Amino acid sequence: MKAEIINIGDELLIGQIVNTNAVWIAQQFNALGVPIARMTTIADKAEDIIEAVGKAFNDHELIVITGGLGPTKDDITKKTLMTYFGTEPVFNQEVYDQLNNWFTARGREFSEVNQTQCYVPSNCKVLMNKWGTAPGMLFEKDGKYLASFPGVPTEMKNLVTHYLIPFIEQHYSLPPLVHRSFNIEGIPESELMKTIESWEDNLPKTIKLAYLPSAGIVKLRMSSLNTDGNAATVMEEESKKLHEIIGNDIFGYEEQTLEEIIKELLLSRNQTLCTAESCTGGYLAHKITSVPGVSRVFPGSFVTYDYWVKTDILGVKKETLQKFGAVSEEVVIEMARAAKEKLKTDYAIALSGIAGPDGGMPDKPVGTVWIAWATPKGIIAKRFAFPGDRVGNIHLSYQKALNILRRIILELPLKKEFWEKG
Amino acid sequence: MKAEIINIGDELLIGQIVNTNAVWIAQQFNALGVPIARMTTIADKAEDIIEAVGKAFNDHELIVITGGLGPTKDDITKKTLMTYFGTEPVFNQEVYDQLNNWFTARGREFSEVNQTQCYVPSNCKVLMNKWGTAPGMLFEKDGKYLASFPGVPTEMKNLVTHYLIPFIEQHYSLPPLVHRSFNIEGIPESELMKTIESWEDNLPKTIKLAYLPSAGIVKLRMSSLNTDGNAATVMEEESKKLHEIIGNDIFGYEEQTLEEIIKELLLSRNQTLCTAESCTGGYLAHKITSVPGVSRVFPGSFVTYDYWVKTDILGVKKETLQKFGAVSEEVVIEMARAAKEKLKTDYAIALSGIAGPDGGMPDKPVGTVWIAWATPKGIIAKRFAFPGDRVGNIHLSYQKALNILRRIILELPLKKEFWEKG
Repeated sequence: MKAEIINIGDELLIGQIVNTNAVWIAQQFNALGVPIARMTTIADKAEDIIEAVGKAFNDHELIVITGGLGPTKDDITKKTLMTYFGTEPVFNQEVYDQLNNWFTARGREFSEVNQTQCYVPSNCKVLMNKWGTAPGMLFEKDGKYLASFPGVPTEMKNLVTHYLIPFIEQHYSLPPLVHRSFNIEGIPESELMKTIESWEDNLPKTIKLAYLPSAGIVKLRMSSLNTDGNAATVMEEESKKLHEIIGNDIFGYEEQTLEEIIKELLLSRNQTLCTAESCTGGYLAHKITSVPGVSRVFPGSFVTYDYWVKTDILGVKKETLQKFGAVSEEVVIEMARAAKEKLKTDYAIALSGIAGPDGGMPDKPVGTVWIAWATPKGIIAKRFAFPGDRVGNIHLSYQKALNILRRIILELPLKKEFWEKG
Repeated sequence: MKAEIINIGDELLIGQIVNTNAVWIAQQFNALGVPIARMTTIADKAEDIIEAVGKAFNDHELIVITGGLGPTKDDITKKTLMTYFGTEPVFNQEVYDQLNNWFTARGREFSEVNQTQCYVPSNCKVLMNKWGTAPGMLFEKDGKYLASFPGVPTEMKNLVTHYLIPFIEQHYSLPPLVHRSFNIEGIPESELMKTIESWEDNLPKTIKLAYLPSAGIVKLRMSSLNTDGNAATVMEEESKKLHEIIGNDIFGYEEQTLEEIIKELLLSRNQTLCTAESCTGGYLAHKITSVPGVSRVFPGSFVTYDYWVKTDILGVKKETLQKFGAVSEEVVIEMARAAKEKLKTDYAIALSGIAGPDGGMPDKPVGTVWIAWATPKGIIAKRFAFPGDRVGNIHLSYQKALNILRRIILELPLKKEFWEKG
């Protein structure tokens, strides 16, 4: 059984939006063990849709379409699918009732335009959309299936999760795939490869290894078919060996994020953290507070963007700022100490740097960021030279800040690079 | 002339990485006026590559391939293209010299594996890759063209910029395309459609209109072929008419973001803004500080996640917090007032709410967010009922906060919904 994703939308073909729908569906299908053989992106154009659907039905067993189900004139997927299947629209009372409630609950008029969404192809199974206004549709043709979803990510994700995945699990006998992912902090991919080379070379043939690098992180994933029921055990053994080599660098597993790990570490130790941010402008606090239930370990943060806010609000000494400048070891240390005291936490992270694109100086070029960690045992600070643009430098600052905090909390040795001059 | 992008890589089909290459190429082509008719993503599999290339040559005039040019065993694009074109590899001295330098400069061995990259198909024009190790290739077949690039984004981008774009500009007479985009604050797509229906119906046939909704924003884009040199003028006229209908809702044009607009508005008025954030946890400050040069209008922010930080650090009265709870009109008003005073700004935005997934109460369900705007003329506040998950509610809070601030600064009337009970 092979699947194809067809994403419909002019906005994708002109590069207005990134196709995050395709990657998300691919991740779900990969976890289920459904191989995707092709992804096709086409315009909101009837003949292109008909051609792509025809080819997909010819080549593959399961087709997932996103986009083109809105109520506006350029949304033609539903109409085109009816042309393709040679069916007619029929009024669906359940959709009508649900949409009527949806608009009423929001104090909005259930307009004529939106009422067109109550008409659905006569040959499809309607997938009720509780997260928006366009219902999903499931079609069958000669034992093959086509599911059509709106392009709005939250709606598509909910419809896939609640209808398509259960349908796939029921309908197909899927190969029993086993995965295990390791989230590894900032080692360059090539360096990691070299470090674990002999382990990788000796992996059982049944295990496939993938390197998935992203900014500041490498995810290492083992995959195996579990035909003999032994895959999980074999993987567990290999996992132990991997830990012996790079255990300290593995901060989490599967979809765990750094901020989730930090929350768990603090929670289990009954400790707290705060931040004092200059160049990151609240990004670190935002990442930390993106984890539900973090309020027990994170009371708050100072975003001290301006000079005088660092002194008058946070409590950095004016002399320190004048003598060493905002981007300095002395200032981030004072920032971290002051934040820890004011917000009464066990740990505080302070950051000050030059995110770019402007503001670089010969001795402090764009990407220079000082980070300080105030801990129950004292304060340490480190200068970094990040290679990114503004967004990248802010992101790398957050990753370094939390990665090193993780090592501090766990009392792991800091890497050699930490003690080198940045 | 129509183009197709073919992205080759198993990692794309299992959702390991987002296809940012496709969106980047699409943006370049869109700016050039080269329409992309299809994007196809396939595996590192010879038969799939041959089939996709054959179909692309059949349907379109220009094909861009990314991926599968590395030196490892799973990179088969070059070999497969030679099979497709029926050609042989030839040694290329220029590639050899360049690679030799590349490895020497990096103190790395120019290994046998990497020397395979010096062999290139005899029928292609080699595009020297100064940014990595795999050269790009340009093939011609019956007057149509195929360009093949490595999948590493920086290498691909440099090769496209330095070779492919100049080639396209020289080789094709491109249709002069004109675009104009309007960024419209949080009107549901269907409502917007109704509001501008008669304008849309009367648009000149030459103008194509697209609705591009994303969380809390609709981008409306007019596109037109400029065959008679008049398109920009016609669009300007239509733009004026559109402004008469929804001018107040248009916050920006093209790629302008809300936070950029806010920065410009404040800068031109010599005014300043700060935030006091509870449920958004620093997200608003982060979005504002993602704009370069914003320090002149944004001194900083208080992230007051815990109760006592709201009182002891920011200065909300204990009685207010006890009597009305953290998510209340009274508390956000005090938060905004205190932040404005402490950070000495002209405006302050305060937010307190229940982002979810937990913490909802019968009278304050998940998604309830109070926002207050302190202005030179006084303070107003509004309760919102956002429908999203944690990430969505935080994002919608930021959009409402800045959208309404924009109206306040510009002294535009607030929408009817603002004055309704949320």
